[in-house]
Amino acid sequence: MSLDGAYDEANPFALILQGKIPSTRLYEDDHTLAFLDIMPQSKGHSLVISKWSKARNILEVEDEALAQVMATVKKVAVATRTALSPDGIHVAQFNGAPAGQTVFHLHVHIVPRWAGGPAGFSAHGQGPMADLAALQAIANEIRAQF
Amino acid sequence: MSLDGAYDEANPFALILQGKIPSTRLYEDDHTLAFLDIMPQSKGHSLVISKWSKARNILEVEDEALAQVMATVKKVAVATRTALSPDGIHVAQFNGAPAGQTVFHLHVHIVPRWAGGPAGFSAHGQGPMADLAALQAIANEIRAQF
Repeated sequence: MSLDGAYDEANPFALILQGKIPSTRLYEDDHTLAFLDIMPQSKGHSLVISKWSKARNILEVEDEALAQVMATVKKVAVATRTALSPDGIHVAQFNGAPAGQTVFHLHVHIVPRWAGGPAGFSAHGQGPMADLAALQAIANEIRAQF
Repeated sequence: MSLDGAYDEANPFALILQGKIPSTRLYEDDHTLAFLDIMPQSKGHSLVISKWSKARNILEVEDEALAQVMATVKKVAVATRTALSPDGIHVAQFNGAPAGQTVFHLHVHIVPRWAGGPAGFSAHGQGPMADLAALQAIANEIRAQF
C-alpha cells in the first residue's frame, strides 16, 4: 500500500483497540497503547499506537497524537531497558509498504538491541510468530517496571 | 558508546548548533533544526534535532523536546514527500552504538524510500560522504515546500 489511501477500520491494530483480537499489553493510558510485536525482531520488541488517531502514517498524524505516542515510546523504552538490559534500543516508524509498513495504523517500533546481535530490521510481516506464553513472560518483566 | 554516560558538548550536532561546523539546513524553528545527513541512506535523507535538549537518547529526553522534534519530523516528512515523491518514508531513531547510534545528541532520521530500492539501514557512519553541492540542490527542492 502506498502513502495514499483511506484508513481501514478493520486493520489489525484497530481490531486490537476494539477488543476483537488479543494483544500482549505492556502499558496503556488514555491516549496510547503499547504491546509486544507478535513477530519480534528481538526479545522485547514492542509497538506503540494512538488509541484515537485515524492516521495511517506520519504524513497524516495530528501533532498531539504523535506527541502522546512518543511520550509512551519513551516510557516503554525506559521500562524495557530496566527489565531486559539491552545495549541499545532501535526506534523505528515505517510509512508506506516500500518503507516496511505492513499495518496501516501509525505505529512506532521499539526494538532492543544487544552488542553482537542483529542491528538491521529483517523483512517484517514474514517472520515466525512468537510463542504467546513466551511473549507473556517478557511482558510481565517489562510491565513490572511501570 | 553505551546507553550510559554524559552529554558531550563537542559532539558534531552540538557543533552544528553552535555554528562551528556547517550543515545543509532544511527547516528551523525556535526549538528544532532539520538538516540533510552527510552520509545519506537515500536521496533526501535528513535528521531532526532539538536545539535545547542535552539528551543523548530517548531514555533521557524531555517529553516536550521529543514532541517538538517529532512535530518537525512530520513537517519535514511532508515536505520531502512533496518535493521528492518517494514511495515510502522510514523514520528511525537509534539509541546506543549497538543500535546504530554514532552521534550522541538525540536525533531522528527521515529516510525516503523508493519501491525496488534498498529498505534496510546500511551501517551508518561508514558510507561515502555526499557531494555538498548535490546535497544543497536537494535541500533547495525540499525547502521550497515549506
